Amino acid sequence: MFYRPRREVASTGARLGGAPEWNIREAHITDPSGRRVVDFANHNLHVVSYSVPVRRRMTLGELRPYLHSLPEQPDLIPYRTAYYTPAWGFCLPHSQLEAMADDTYDVVIDATLEPGSLTYGEVVIPGESDEEVLLSAHVCHPSLANDNCSGLATLAWLGRLIGQYRRRYTYRLLFAPGTIGAIAWLAANRERTARVRHGLILSNLGDGAPPLYSAAGAVMPTSTGLPTGSRPERTCRPGRRLLPYGYDERQYCSPGFDLPVGAFQRSRWGEFAAYHTSADNMSLIAPAHLAHSASLVAKILDVLEANCRPLNTLPYGEPQLGRRGVYDDAGGRPLPQDVRLALLWVLNLADGRHSLIDIAERSGIAFPALRDASKRLYAAGLLVDAPSGLQ
Amino acid sequence: MFYRPRREVASTGARLGGAPEWNIREAHITDPSGRRVVDFANHNLHVVSYSVPVRRRMTLGELRPYLHSLPEQPDLIPYRTAYYTPAWGFCLPHSQLEAMADDTYDVVIDATLEPGSLTYGEVVIPGESDEEVLLSAHVCHPSLANDNCSGLATLAWLGRLIGQYRRRYTYRLLFAPGTIGAIAWLAANRERTARVRHGLILSNLGDGAPPLYSAAGAVMPTSTGLPTGSRPERTCRPGRRLLPYGYDERQYCSPGFDLPVGAFQRSRWGEFAAYHTSADNMSLIAPAHLAHSASLVAKILDVLEANCRPLNTLPYGEPQLGRRGVYDDAGGRPLPQDVRLALLWVLNLADGRHSLIDIAERSGIAFPALRDASKRLYAAGLLVDAPSGLQ
Amino acid sequence: MFYRPRREVASTGARLGGAPEWNIREAHITDPSGRRVVDFANHNLHVVSYSVPVRRRMTLGELRPYLHSLPEQPDLIPYRTAYYTPAWGFCLPHSQLEAMADDTYDVVIDATLEPGSLTYGEVVIPGESDEEVLLSAHVCHPSLANDNCSGLATLAWLGRLIGQYRRRYTYRLLFAPGTIGAIAWLAANRERTARVRHGLILSNLGDGAPPLYSAAGAVMPTSTGLPTGSRPERTCRPGRRLLPYGYDERQYCSPGFDLPVGAFQRSRWGEFAAYHTSADNMSLIAPAHLAHSASLVAKILDVLEANCRPLNTLPYGEPQLGRRGVYDDAGGRPLPQDVRLALLWVLNLADGRHSLIDIAERSGIAFPALRDASKRLYAAGLLVDAPSGLQ
Repeated sequence: MFYRPRREVASTGARLGGAPEWNIREAHITDPSGRRVVDFANHNLHVVSYSVPVRRRMTLGELRPYLHSLPEQPDLIPYRTAYYTPAWGFCLPHSQLEAMADDTYDVVIDATLEPGSLTYGEVVIPGESDEEVLLSAHVCHPSLANDNCSGLATLAWLGRLIGQYRRRYTYRLLFAPGTIGAIAWLAANRERTARVRHGLILSNLGDGAPPLYSAAGAVMPTSTGLPTGSRPERTCRPGRRLLPYGYDERQYCSPGFDLPVGAFQRSRWGEFAAYHTSADNMSLIAPAHLAHSASLVAKILDVLEANCRPLNTLPYGEPQLGRRGVYDDAGGRPLPQDVRLALLWVLNLADGRHSLIDIAERSGIAFPALRDASKRLYAAGLLVDAPSGLQ
Repeated sequence: MFYRPRREVASTGARLGGAPEWNIREAHITDPSGRRVVDFANHNLHVVSYSVPVRRRMTLGELRPYLHSLPEQPDLIPYRTAYYTPAWGFCLPHSQLEAMADDTYDVVIDATLEPGSLTYGEVVIPGESDEEVLLSAHVCHPSLANDNCSGLATLAWLGRLIGQYRRRYTYRLLFAPGTIGAIAWLAANRERTARVRHGLILSNLGDGAPPLYSAAGAVMPTSTGLPTGSRPERTCRPGRRLLPYGYDERQYCSPGFDLPVGAFQRSRWGEFAAYHTSADNMSLIAPAHLAHSASLVAKILDVLEANCRPLNTLPYGEPQLGRRGVYDDAGGRPLPQDVRLALLWVLNLADGRHSLIDIAERSGIAFPALRDASKRLYAAGLLVDAPSGLQ
Repeated sequence: MFYRPRREVASTGARLGGAPEWNIREAHITDPSGRRVVDFANHNLHVVSYSVPVRRRMTLGELRPYLHSLPEQPDLIPYRTAYYTPAWGFCLPHSQLEAMADDTYDVVIDATLEPGSLTYGEVVIPGESDEEVLLSAHVCHPSLANDNCSGLATLAWLGRLIGQYRRRYTYRLLFAPGTIGAIAWLAANRERTARVRHGLILSNLGDGAPPLYSAAGAVMPTSTGLPTGSRPERTCRPGRRLLPYGYDERQYCSPGFDLPVGAFQRSRWGEFAAYHTSADNMSLIAPAHLAHSASLVAKILDVLEANCRPLNTLPYGEPQLGRRGVYDDAGGRPLPQDVRLALLWVLNLADGRHSLIDIAERSGIAFPALRDASKRLYAAGLLVDAPSGLQ
């Protein structure tokens, strides 16, 4: 029932082919003197993603509608996309845009949209059961640190950690492009989704904002320790949806699936100044925040792994705990009152219909204390796992 | 699904006979000089309704117990009834009562209680379905403006309005005496009540108080825009009863029926100074208030008509809205974020188990915005009406 | 349905034998001069309950670990037990302990643990139904006034009271040792527990603290008038458990039983200064508090007895109350508005699915007012008891 070392990890991946794939070789804007005033080689964000190919000489006036900047954040390059539309454009700091001379420019985007494939990484870490925990991060935001790499780094770290312990659940880690990657995985694995018991979308985990959990579908119970938004009564109650908007929880929670998948972030998407700009770079995120985020997820997984549905083997009145050595510590000294109370709560609700998480919700006692109490009671033979028919 | 002009109205009425009916020809109190100091010809309220016939000469001392006034509102005539009891009386301003000389008076009430009938007006405006919306106003308070005519005027206006549009629901408008009229209609239409899906009792709609909705049985959801009392958590939640007291919602919500009928008022019965007095006259009510009340009811009916239970035709991940022209306006400009959010909410909950009103309750988005979003999605083929078996 | 005098009481008791029983004849600590510095004959609390026999000469240093006192309440003797462990000890005021000379003492505990029996008192007061109300108080705390005798006194008084009235429920009064007594009774009466509809554990009822009701399992509805703890939303809602800790509600609410039994106290166990010390004596409790506690329980029982599930015999609209004399008092004067409102609430919810307690919860009207209204309606033939199939 509890974490024990074991090693058994299976890594896979997938390339789903057939649809057109966008690729870019080079892109730049060159002034009459031959100087490249904007160059994709300098920053991924300089070109609107999915731009169609361009090779034209244009006046600044002609070029102007294709140039995107942020007047209120004049030193930042914005992140823009033109998915599925035959458009093109360049992104640059507003200060740089304003300094461009009223000249004629050579504009080149050497890009292709040709039959290709969609690539995502998938790691399956099998557990004792084929019930799954799904963890996912998006890989599609070019050069963004918090809103891309922080999720990937956390997910990779978690994968290594999970592989080191014995597991009840099977863990599925997805590294996939946002929206299209989730939809592609879901389309290819429709029948497998019925096995998903819990899921977390990881993003924006490297900044210093307080951790935030929000669920579009069913959610983690509060006793997992998940931090919640400012309106906890809306964000944390099972069955409530926060928003059909955000990251890939939108897809996992769409009709037909409606999986118990929530989002775990620090700063919320769209709500931090560097969001979708060149300022979302390595200086925005810090190892300490990543480590804290990862440890929080690890704690949540620990709760999910340790959860069980105990059955009191001596019902009809309280069993005598003292005689069974459960009420005292190894040295015979009485256990603290809060430990005794946790023991009594578990025994009282161990009717086979309450899980440890249910007991945590009901009693207000933290899950780890109840887990310790139940370990002690299992060891004394006072609890067994409830048969599944009892639930 | 939405209002479209069409004309198809059926008006009916009924006279239920057999029981005794009270009628009055004249009533007055005459002083020794032959002056009629109180005369029913001057004001309907001067005689206690349902008074038995009287023709006596009485001293002021003998007459005094039969005279009703309001010492704290000395210039107003109170409204009194003696239903089903063999009593009689006169109502007059307290100032007038105090000015009566200690003389002998001729007292006449020329009334009859003989086999007759109860009359009510009923307008049925058929819709595509035989499911009904019941709207009712009482006709029995003599000469009262707010607590009688305001409901009748609003109901008549609504009847004309409803008749001008294509309707899903069948509308039944009742103009009937309070209590006995509702009971008579219910007794004559017991099997028909099973078709009533929504109902509103209309009264006190001409004064300037804020609109108030209260439900004795099941109620309208808050997203219909219905204003609620000071304790909205009590007045608006489905299944809560506010009071088995008030107007005819008492009858429609009695055991055996328990119809989803609430009351819509501005000032609440019994809580305004002019209530049940001669001050409840035309000077108390104003066309602007009547118009506002009627438009509020019209908006509610609009919500009820436009409500639907949509089914997402492309579940299993979000459909690409851009390609289907749903995410942009007619000119190709992106729709505002709140409109997009409404689209996503409707798609996400369009699983055939949620109505648009349910989606409004869940998302906190106003019904009209969701209705516009669903129109757009129906037009793009992304929604269809859910088959009834799905609910 | 309502209390009427009748006499029919059956008193029983039980001695369950077989297990070892602890008995004590004498216990003392004698100094070299022959003076008994601690003597069980002076106070029951001087010996740790369940102490094994001792007869030794010991230095103060050797004896010290066996002496228990309360340094922060230096004048009080603590109450200590050593159930089911082969330990022994003496309890004494800390001031007395500090005054003991560094001498050699003769220590004697003349106790036995031999096959014996457990004794409890049980009074069954039969009612018209074999559904039971269980009332219990513990008898095991030696010499404690509030935390032992106050419950016994209240329970005895209630037994006499209950016997004087006609009853619907059968009442079972238990005077039993805490924990082991409840478990023994439950073990001997397992099949009988299915008849328990309500239960109260009585303790700490003689002090001046405000009455407190807390439930470990299902609970009394608030309309019984039961005072509740500082978090009424936790203590009073049906189905909530407050704590699997406290008095014998722990046993009655353990898995396998989970009876609707709560605890009724004034000061809560463990939370008053005199708790489990010699200060919990007759000076702590007062007749007025005992009387108040008993009268509160009597009121609760009155509610339980008077509760019924009425059925409106004239549904489908309000019956005419005036004609049936229900709307006026005996002298023909109209009943006050709040009485009329109670009548209408009862009639409106008398659909056979709501008990009077349910109606009290829903309407916010006090139970006694609803009981009076329902009496009036039963008398007029407007209510009958609902057949059990309707519930």
